Amino acid sequence: MSRRSRSLADLGESALIRRIARRAGPPQGRSWALGIGDDAAILRSHPDEELVLSTDTQVEGVHFRFGRETPRTIGRRALAVNLSDLAAMGAEPVGALLSLCAPPEMALSVFDGMIAGFVDESRRFSCPLVGGNLSRAEVSSLTVTVVGRCRRGRALRRRGLRPGDRLYVTGTLGGATLARLRADRRGTLLRRVPVPRLAAGRALARIRGLRACIDISDGLASDLAHLLEGSSWGAEIDFDRLPVPTGFRRGCRELGLDPREILVNGGEDYELLFALAPRDALNDLVALKRRLEVPVSEIGRVVRRSGIRGLPPVRAGHHF
Amino acid sequence: MSRRSRSLADLGESALIRRIARRAGPPQGRSWALGIGDDAAILRSHPDEELVLSTDTQVEGVHFRFGRETPRTIGRRALAVNLSDLAAMGAEPVGALLSLCAPPEMALSVFDGMIAGFVDESRRFSCPLVGGNLSRAEVSSLTVTVVGRCRRGRALRRRGLRPGDRLYVTGTLGGATLARLRADRRGTLLRRVPVPRLAAGRALARIRGLRACIDISDGLASDLAHLLEGSSWGAEIDFDRLPVPTGFRRGCRELGLDPREILVNGGEDYELLFALAPRDALNDLVALKRRLEVPVSEIGRVVRRSGIRGLPPVRAGHHF
Repeated sequence: MSRRSRSLADLGESALIRRIARRAGPPQGRSWALGIGDDAAILRSHPDEELVLSTDTQVEGVHFRFGRETPRTIGRRALAVNLSDLAAMGAEPVGALLSLCAPPEMALSVFDGMIAGFVDESRRFSCPLVGGNLSRAEVSSLTVTVVGRCRRGRALRRRGLRPGDRLYVTGTLGGATLARLRADRRGTLLRRVPVPRLAAGRALARIRGLRACIDISDGLASDLAHLLEGSSWGAEIDFDRLPVPTGFRRGCRELGLDPREILVNGGEDYELLFALAPRDALNDLVALKRRLEVPVSEIGRVVRRSGIRGLPPVRAGHHF
Repeated sequence: MSRRSRSLADLGESALIRRIARRAGPPQGRSWALGIGDDAAILRSHPDEELVLSTDTQVEGVHFRFGRETPRTIGRRALAVNLSDLAAMGAEPVGALLSLCAPPEMALSVFDGMIAGFVDESRRFSCPLVGGNLSRAEVSSLTVTVVGRCRRGRALRRRGLRPGDRLYVTGTLGGATLARLRADRRGTLLRRVPVPRLAAGRALARIRGLRACIDISDGLASDLAHLLEGSSWGAEIDFDRLPVPTGFRRGCRELGLDPREILVNGGEDYELLFALAPRDALNDLVALKRRLEVPVSEIGRVVRRSGIRGLPPVRAGHHF
């Protein structure tokens, strides 16, 4: 019996990250308040302040395609998805580094477009481009590292759910994935860039009873599982309360798509998923929305029984 | 007459970085002491301290080849070349983020080897791996962002040369490039990883009269040009005083290589190139070596006349 050697695809992203975390161990010394496994690492940089650092890569052919979106959109999104990690930590942007890999034959106009998009986005969110690297590569990619700051001890984390906590999301879900699939089918340019929920994240960091927060970048099912990781608790989702954009179900019907699958697995909206303690919470949803200055929906709660219930049984979306 | 549109190769790396710097502009506000254009950006994080941040990518087929070196060596080098940027700033490592791109069919043993190498190196230099990202990609790459710290206002920079300054390098030049070319020719595994000159960099940061510092990652000619960038000064190199490892010239002869070309363009040693003011300098080379705890050679000086003299006229090495 031959035994095929295992590949990355056999394990999947979460298992690979746990593998790295085990090998690296928690950071020694007092510099780091948080290492591998959250949306960002937390550095104790100052008596009153901490810095959060996060990195994310967009790869040609995987996360973007030249010809399917403009270079400007590609540059903007590369920063936006990183700023979303700062939002999920409740941090304010401080600056960004960009490592750009591109083939030597890339047209200068494409390069300029990506840089212009990146810089526009960096101005919009006060996150200056302060450094980086250029490398030759056959396949283009943009790796961004963002630095953010928040008051010491106030960064939002993934861990901390307890049974009874209420679960919320900002904005609507599914719209970004639908827009991408629609552009793919019609062969039109995708111009959509997620809006990082920075102001909402900072507002959440000031709310007593905030238990956990993550940005939905892999899909609701995956990212809710990330919040539950390391605990024995589960979640019950009220599927009918998941907020969708106007025309979402019709749009799915037109393209012959299952809206349930997009809602469960669509990970391109970069909305915040967070939990509030039942007693401390701003139970009045109107007050919560006013505080966060974005639409907010209550979508379920944390329960003692492990596993996620209430999501339709569609095939899992996120693999390595 | 048709006009071909320009590509990245037409401009080259330095011009592209200047293009990005012009578009981005200097960072606004008081957070950043230094933005694009040095070995690292400098963040004012604390009244007594500043953080330096740098990022660098190693791409399969460009910076490394599976089968020509072990996964462990690839992982170690990915961190080492970044630590070299911290050394060039005179900073002490605080932590690192790793964004790893790899194809789903990569063997888990290769992944484990790269991570093991990275983590070994991170322990050796007290630079814990605190976060990162995994992405699917056809071509593998490792993008590392390192964070270092130094006393406020004491980070070493590239700019600051003045006529009369003496130029020095640590260690020897050319050995790493020769070792790679030899392994290429013989089809043997390359196991060499540069040793970041962290202790020497920190010692330099405490020396009065230190005018400028860079790590030689592109080659002596390119990196000396980086030190001169933005000034009207030039440099005179005493070519015969460039330090080479034992057996270097014989090794070049055996492979039919021009040692002058390797010395001018070989950029894989990651030694420090620095300048000391003529009066404040530790003029006694013995004292300087004792202070830095590494071999140091004086290789030339800064002059009023622009341009670099004393390097043999070999073809330029570093293109995008």
